[in-house]
Amino acid sequence: MNAKQEFRVIGTRPIRPDGLDKVTGRARYGSDLNMQGQIYGHIVRSPHAHAVIKSIDCSKALAMEGVLAVMTGADLAEPGNTVLGSGEGAIALKDLIPMVMSQGKVLFHAQAIAAVAATTSELAAEAAAAIEVVYEVLPVVTNCRDALADDAPILHGDRFPDGKPKEPTNLAAHITMQVGEPDAAFEKADVIVERTYSVPMCHQGYIEPHACVAQVDAADRVELWCSTQGHFTVRQYTAGVTGIGLGKIRVTPSEIGGGFGGKTTVYLEPIAVLLAKKSGRPVKMVMDRGDVFRATGPAPGAETRVKLGATKDGRLVAADVDCLMDSGAYNGNPAGIPAFMATACYKFSDARSTGRSVYTNKPKIHAYRAPSMPQVTLAFELVMNEVAAELKIDPLEFRLINAVEEGDVNMMGAPYKRIGLRECLEAARSHPHYQSAVAEGTGRGIAAGYWINAGGQSSATLNVSADGHVALLTGSPDIGGSRASMALMAAEVLGIPIETIHPQVVATDAVGYCDVTGGSRTTLATGQAVIQAADELVAELCRRAALDWDVPESDVEWSEGAAHHGEQSLSFEDFASRANGMGGPLTVSSSLNSTSASPGFGVHLCDAEVDKETGRTTITRYTVVQDAGKAIHPAYVEGQMQGGAAQGIGWALNEEYVYNDQGVLENPGFLDYRIPVASDLPFIDTVIVEVPNPLHPVGVKGVGEVPIVPPMPAVAQAVFDSAAIRVMNLPLSPAKVVAAIVEDT
Amino acid sequence: MNAKQEFRVIGTRPIRPDGLDKVTGRARYGSDLNMQGQIYGHIVRSPHAHAVIKSIDCSKALAMEGVLAVMTGADLAEPGNTVLGSGEGAIALKDLIPMVMSQGKVLFHAQAIAAVAATTSELAAEAAAAIEVVYEVLPVVTNCRDALADDAPILHGDRFPDGKPKEPTNLAAHITMQVGEPDAAFEKADVIVERTYSVPMCHQGYIEPHACVAQVDAADRVELWCSTQGHFTVRQYTAGVTGIGLGKIRVTPSEIGGGFGGKTTVYLEPIAVLLAKKSGRPVKMVMDRGDVFRATGPAPGAETRVKLGATKDGRLVAADVDCLMDSGAYNGNPAGIPAFMATACYKFSDARSTGRSVYTNKPKIHAYRAPSMPQVTLAFELVMNEVAAELKIDPLEFRLINAVEEGDVNMMGAPYKRIGLRECLEAARSHPHYQSAVAEGTGRGIAAGYWINAGGQSSATLNVSADGHVALLTGSPDIGGSRASMALMAAEVLGIPIETIHPQVVATDAVGYCDVTGGSRTTLATGQAVIQAADELVAELCRRAALDWDVPESDVEWSEGAAHHGEQSLSFEDFASRANGMGGPLTVSSSLNSTSASPGFGVHLCDAEVDKETGRTTITRYTVVQDAGKAIHPAYVEGQMQGGAAQGIGWALNEEYVYNDQGVLENPGFLDYRIPVASDLPFIDTVIVEVPNPLHPVGVKGVGEVPIVPPMPAVAQAVFDSAAIRVMNLPLSPAKVVAAIVEDT
Repeated sequence: MNAKQEFRVIGTRPIRPDGLDKVTGRARYGSDLNMQGQIYGHIVRSPHAHAVIKSIDCSKALAMEGVLAVMTGADLAEPGNTVLGSGEGAIALKDLIPMVMSQGKVLFHAQAIAAVAATTSELAAEAAAAIEVVYEVLPVVTNCRDALADDAPILHGDRFPDGKPKEPTNLAAHITMQVGEPDAAFEKADVIVERTYSVPMCHQGYIEPHACVAQVDAADRVELWCSTQGHFTVRQYTAGVTGIGLGKIRVTPSEIGGGFGGKTTVYLEPIAVLLAKKSGRPVKMVMDRGDVFRATGPAPGAETRVKLGATKDGRLVAADVDCLMDSGAYNGNPAGIPAFMATACYKFSDARSTGRSVYTNKPKIHAYRAPSMPQVTLAFELVMNEVAAELKIDPLEFRLINAVEEGDVNMMGAPYKRIGLRECLEAARSHPHYQSAVAEGTGRGIAAGYWINAGGQSSATLNVSADGHVALLTGSPDIGGSRASMALMAAEVLGIPIETIHPQVVATDAVGYCDVTGGSRTTLATGQAVIQAADELVAELCRRAALDWDVPESDVEWSEGAAHHGEQSLSFEDFASRANGMGGPLTVSSSLNSTSASPGFGVHLCDAEVDKETGRTTITRYTVVQDAGKAIHPAYVEGQMQGGAAQGIGWALNEEYVYNDQGVLENPGFLDYRIPVASDLPFIDTVIVEVPNPLHPVGVKGVGEVPIVPPMPAVAQAVFDSAAIRVMNLPLSPAKVVAAIVEDT
Repeated sequence: MNAKQEFRVIGTRPIRPDGLDKVTGRARYGSDLNMQGQIYGHIVRSPHAHAVIKSIDCSKALAMEGVLAVMTGADLAEPGNTVLGSGEGAIALKDLIPMVMSQGKVLFHAQAIAAVAATTSELAAEAAAAIEVVYEVLPVVTNCRDALADDAPILHGDRFPDGKPKEPTNLAAHITMQVGEPDAAFEKADVIVERTYSVPMCHQGYIEPHACVAQVDAADRVELWCSTQGHFTVRQYTAGVTGIGLGKIRVTPSEIGGGFGGKTTVYLEPIAVLLAKKSGRPVKMVMDRGDVFRATGPAPGAETRVKLGATKDGRLVAADVDCLMDSGAYNGNPAGIPAFMATACYKFSDARSTGRSVYTNKPKIHAYRAPSMPQVTLAFELVMNEVAAELKIDPLEFRLINAVEEGDVNMMGAPYKRIGLRECLEAARSHPHYQSAVAEGTGRGIAAGYWINAGGQSSATLNVSADGHVALLTGSPDIGGSRASMALMAAEVLGIPIETIHPQVVATDAVGYCDVTGGSRTTLATGQAVIQAADELVAELCRRAALDWDVPESDVEWSEGAAHHGEQSLSFEDFASRANGMGGPLTVSSSLNSTSASPGFGVHLCDAEVDKETGRTTITRYTVVQDAGKAIHPAYVEGQMQGGAAQGIGWALNEEYVYNDQGVLENPGFLDYRIPVASDLPFIDTVIVEVPNPLHPVGVKGVGEVPIVPPMPAVAQAVFDSAAIRVMNLPLSPAKVVAAIVEDT
């Protein structure tokens, strides 16, 4: 396959293979599987946000009829210094285990302390209430600034950001990247703007709560069904947390009702497994919404200072970024991305970017679409607007002047390959939205966004049945239509109808290893594995044709779903029905560790109108322009763009974790934690720009992360302009906007 | 791999991977899966053995509350002249569909007429009883000889054994094979014996009845779970019978509680699928024992005339065999094997062998371990004994004189490769059993047996996890320990511990195509696919090592679970844990259409004592000697040998279908159809002979069929000798033996 070729089915919009089951309610999500003889697990959670566990007494619970097992953190592995995985995906057991269950110390409210399994969920809850835990309560800190104060309660007495033991601190990490001499470069600037914006912790808000069911057989082999973005990761983490061998664990992913990064780890799974092992019965566990908010990993809150300098001709000459991120109670590694990527959209010879992360008595943060980028981009893009305004340059033109392009080098050192930021800015500029006048009373925001995009390990298997249909197996959970995109790529290479391809997401033992569906890697990397497998299948078919026709293999050509040599041809269906006599069944497995990722860029336009009486913001028009590389299934690319924008708008306007001074989350439900609903949003217009990724066989770049990066600054700018205010801490909730209006007048 | 090498783990006896689940009751058989929301199917069966269906009225059933679907044969495909599969495995829809459900005519008692699905199984049965069927009853014939009589009721007016329309007949097939000039050759014989023995229809007697559960999604995709020896065949047959596309059907095999050839077709499955499609609910169906006996495919009864001639020096000079087989109501193709294989144990320059099959008003016969061979071997081996006796040659010596060996050609024309009949006879001769004196009042029988052994299509997939464990996927249901033998072969090639291999039998879409587990093909052909996949994996690991070490691939050697080059080595675990950095996940799929099959031979020794008062036979000693080629897991080879012998003993002594003159089976239950129980049998001694199959990478020949071939003549001879009788029609039930004793005295 070659990215430059014309495509036959790639780029079309067939109905997704999983669509009918989903719209008719037959698709099975995390809590939809019941195993025969299953019992129910329930978790005891800490009422305190910071405490030492003095004792746990499970005897009363265990004595209850129908209670079949209890467990505590003592049943989990010793974390030691064990690290699971490598690179960006690495996690230390000491950061992973306590998010499953505490092992002696409580560092956030609702942390799991113990669990019980009983024959009904009601009984399990009752038994959990009968478990007696004695706590020594400690003072609480839930705010980064407070956590760095001299007299702050220290969460970890034994963690030091640079590895050298010294005075304990809540500083989890401190990373600075620099190119050139930014301090000196600022002196060349005609205009310098420096601002600090903050954004609160927020949740991915996936509609489906965490759920799983596990059973353990007589030989300790584990069957685990759960809602996850990566069942291979669930296998790895569950093995690490429980101490059960990796090879003995089979994880099957359910359909997934949203993850957005938040379902790339384990919470319930190791508990269900250990309760199943202890009880000898399958154990089902389902979180309620409150526990999802309280005890899973939200996106970090952040405070970002951005200082930019530019010359009169509109050229950026220096940047200085400092991003302070809230890691929650354990190390969620949020500091690296601001340090590496804060400046990634623009050409800088001289820039510095610092990321720091801090421990607080809140749940450990976790990935949320383009993790850490929206928080830092909020400040960066708003400052870009101010600089442009001071220079009296159109903000879009200002970005075009400075936009990175092929050959530019960012903080990470490697020159960009062919990228599409310029094309996105140009498409935005010529879009009717940008060409339209800003309505009276309305503000308009523009923002660009970047995401590095991930590659990584993927595998695919093709099994052909005698009627020429193809079972396409991957290990990448389908969270955004990837069954459809995988089928399209296979159909493209094989030259057969999309309807004859049956894409499936299969269990950990049924296909080669696949990294999580996340980081915008799946269509790129798993797609590449699918293309590679299909290419291998075509090669095998050409070999068979050559044998059959007694001609050199190199003289056989594959096109339009058939092998050809002169007048002779054999169709894919021919090979399928005659496999028996031509070498046996057709089956191919292929895998790779893809290094083909290429960054994605997007540009968002937002018109918003603020009701100055109530402070309520109405998004009146919203347009997303994004470089997809190549949109395999454009409808699902648009869906990603719209979904990311919707989530970013929610974060900009309403979403936030509200903690009281005891470290208790005060809004753990969708009534008080307000995500956008359909009536909150206009139709989000989309423009797919296609600048093919030269490293990928069909040009894919990945699209899932970028669209959540620009909305916060785009919305904020529109709100600021509409209401003639500037608010330094998001979200721009009605109360806050009204307060700012009042303050201004 | 090379058959001549020493093996590290092949030939050892590890605990089977599925053992713990089976002994602890966790393994799931056909009726152990319940799908959420399932309802229950029930079949209306004909009370007549021969009738025309005038009308079926389902309206009362459909009107019942809780009845969600009904179906009749009109819902199945039009059979036309469609043939599924090819070669030996081919079956015409017109022979397959009516064993699922009648389409207008009833040809045997209890044939399915209609089916109903309802919310409980009781309600389904009640509703089935409310379906009104009007029959025009026809005269019945249940016996081959009667069926060939001039005035016999004709079952099929449109079937002619040679394809040419003429006077209708019940003759289904007539096949004659001949080498040399047998009629002339008999003139050279010093001794000629000719006898006709008959054996009744009997059932495979698998303990687990047929059971399945099916669901059909909104896109007509079928999920089917069932107890089967071949889920790919179930997929193919279900597609053919229902008209649903092959590629839309996924079949997952349950554990199987016996099949012995009887679970290589479909009975309930297409019905459950169509009821599920109609009702929109999963449909579960389970046969009761009576219906298993009445309406599934038993082994054909047969009447076999064998005429053998030999010279004084003990050399066989001519054979003439004529085997008349009962096909039941449709074509079960039982006639070919007697024609091709009746004489296969012995050298003949001049022989003729005829197989004929006849339609009768009984269920269509189906495979039962070495199909047709026990029936014809019964007569052949008993005549061999009589010839030896007349020649005053020890029967074992007589067989040794005439035993086929490498290079000999049988009726099928291809010369034998390296075979083991001679080695088996020699092992039997030197065995303590044969060396012991025959006890007073006891008889001793000896018989040889042959089975061609099958090859065919198999696939295997290996997926390696990061801890070096290997998921080994095949599509061959494990009916005799094949998970263990597959794991042993993979462990042998890879050089890693057997405990790290996790063999699994996976659904039709999860692995390349595999033919049924039957014909003694699985350890041979699926094993070959496993070895091939493991060889490919080793090649990939050596390639990775060569890259890592920057040395030529050809200089890297694989031994003891590691790649080596000089002092450097990388273990399998190293490759597994470092896969990420060495090219990506390790996954291999391989397939073949194996032509490596090589025939198996066995020799059985039986001592039996007949109680002359009651006619009851006690088997006092039984020894099975068999060439396995190479016994991968000797315990399961011995198990096959013992199991086949036990079944053959049952057939010899007690098992038979008893029909009344209305064509109604009179003994459709284990109380009246007597299979051997543990107390009926002595410990069956086994001797595994190993004459490696030169065509197979580790020498496997296949062992499952041969051991059911010799028992009938071995037991019969022992009974005849003990009681001083000769009975021409088996089984040698107490009543029949007493009658023969009385007649003799």
